[in-house]
Amino acid sequence: MQSVREDADFVDTEIIVRYGETDKMGVVYYANYLVWFEVGRVAWCRAKGFRYRDMEAQYGRFMMVAEAKCRYLAPARFEDDILIRTAVGKSTDRIIRFEYLIQNKTTGQLLARGETVHVLTDTRCRPARLPDHYRHYFGLLPRSSGRKAFAGDLG
Amino acid sequence: MQSVREDADFVDTEIIVRYGETDKMGVVYYANYLVWFEVGRVAWCRAKGFRYRDMEAQYGRFMMVAEAKCRYLAPARFEDDILIRTAVGKSTDRIIRFEYLIQNKTTGQLLARGETVHVLTDTRCRPARLPDHYRHYFGLLPRSSGRKAFAGDLG
Amino acid sequence: MQSVREDADFVDTEIIVRYGETDKMGVVYYANYLVWFEVGRVAWCRAKGFRYRDMEAQYGRFMMVAEAKCRYLAPARFEDDILIRTAVGKSTDRIIRFEYLIQNKTTGQLLARGETVHVLTDTRCRPARLPDHYRHYFGLLPRSSGRKAFAGDLG
Amino acid sequence: MQSVREDADFVDTEIIVRYGETDKMGVVYYANYLVWFEVGRVAWCRAKGFRYRDMEAQYGRFMMVAEAKCRYLAPARFEDDILIRTAVGKSTDRIIRFEYLIQNKTTGQLLARGETVHVLTDTRCRPARLPDHYRHYFGLLPRSSGRKAFAGDLG
Repeated sequence: MQSVREDADFVDTEIIVRYGETDKMGVVYYANYLVWFEVGRVAWCRAKGFRYRDMEAQYGRFMMVAEAKCRYLAPARFEDDILIRTAVGKSTDRIIRFEYLIQNKTTGQLLARGETVHVLTDTRCRPARLPDHYRHYFGLLPRSSGRKAFAGDLG
Repeated sequence: MQSVREDADFVDTEIIVRYGETDKMGVVYYANYLVWFEVGRVAWCRAKGFRYRDMEAQYGRFMMVAEAKCRYLAPARFEDDILIRTAVGKSTDRIIRFEYLIQNKTTGQLLARGETVHVLTDTRCRPARLPDHYRHYFGLLPRSSGRKAFAGDLG
Repeated sequence: MQSVREDADFVDTEIIVRYGETDKMGVVYYANYLVWFEVGRVAWCRAKGFRYRDMEAQYGRFMMVAEAKCRYLAPARFEDDILIRTAVGKSTDRIIRFEYLIQNKTTGQLLARGETVHVLTDTRCRPARLPDHYRHYFGLLPRSSGRKAFAGDLG
Repeated sequence: MQSVREDADFVDTEIIVRYGETDKMGVVYYANYLVWFEVGRVAWCRAKGFRYRDMEAQYGRFMMVAEAKCRYLAPARFEDDILIRTAVGKSTDRIIRFEYLIQNKTTGQLLARGETVHVLTDTRCRPARLPDHYRHYFGLLPRSSGRKAFAGDLG
């Protein structure tokens, strides 16, 4: 979890804590932080210039979650303004890592930090590669110049 | 809502209230009753002798929710044993109605009553008919003997 | 449900459909519209000039949901930009009604319309009155001038 | 994550995958495994002879989640019968660890494994000790015989 680098290239998005996200302890239920991570991923994609749903719909590529971790540092409460900060960690065209910081936007307090690891798959859940078109979004160099068929990535 | 007939042919199933289903008021969050209704529908199907997922997977028929109502009478709390009682209301082979009673199993207290209306659709969300094979589950008579093509229902 | 008046004084807020809000049919799961209604209520309160959580925390008043209805007209999908439109319906200082329109923000298509009825309660779930301070937000006239004790509303 | 010991003293409980727990990929949304872990914890407590809600209500002790991890191995699908297997890991009277295995009950396939770390707190979220009365449930020896005041644990 130490791997969440506070100096990374974070994309920020904001949400307001929903009533239904709290539990009887009066704070946000722990599973909902993983939902917020997903909100962060979608915002990250939009900030980079593409929509995650297009990668699914147009390229048949899915980012199946293989692992998720969250460390909870301080509670979030109903109607708190929350800052979700998302960055891409060490990734390849088969394995994508995201890192997250969850902060109280008003106080700046760090509430949680987390990490998810994703495996690229095709529509049948088989391992697949990131479409070439998306490589630069994740800081990956173009594949060897020999490749011809962009269409091959659609397979 | 008065239409929930307490003398109807109810199928019962039980759940235990999850921590994540509560909210900061200490009681179950109101949207979760609709989730419980769905648990009731699945239990109803199993009790009748089929699985809802098979109707989707084998016949390409979906029960899209067109309307949902819930009247909340008393709160449910964490770890309460809950009885979900589900019955089919007035239905056709295009419109299915379910009725629900939510009770505290320990005390018998009625906590909520609700109703959902479903439209039968095919995989492309177009209106469709209940497969003939399922008619009797919903108290519907066989279709007029003149029909030939059972396969037509799969269309 | 016809009671959702399209000419009412709606407060608008926007959300993006979350992946976790969809279900295997590829559209938003029906219970989540009630969560969106709650997002609409909180936005309505903020637009009117107060925070719902302050009414709970400072005045010990809760808006317990007594009834919820939703009519589903067209599906919402992952990453759709959604407009939640919220208005107060016919209310008293004991019973508050909210009405909702859910629209696809991009196309303007109406996806769902709903209504919730709330009973004002104190911290022990007993019926209570809206604090006087909040009456004007809900279009209610000041109570009879004879009353003295504002503190009485805090009871 | 390797720390989930398959030979540990697991308590088993079963659930059926809910429609609302799936997402547009047709499989269970990743955050819901953390909800299932909580279902496992509650079942574990009941199997040991106490109710988690009583620890909260009678002793004012909460098990705040400090960390959660899940490794996803294979997807769970709508209506699958799921086995949630829960064990207590290395714990003290201040820090409780739970370990989980999620299996497809029908096929026996391991779908996910996870771990949560909990900090004992009082009602004000301050660090606290497990009530003595609960020590044996978690495999902890009685505290030093010198102590007198059981009431002290209620503080």
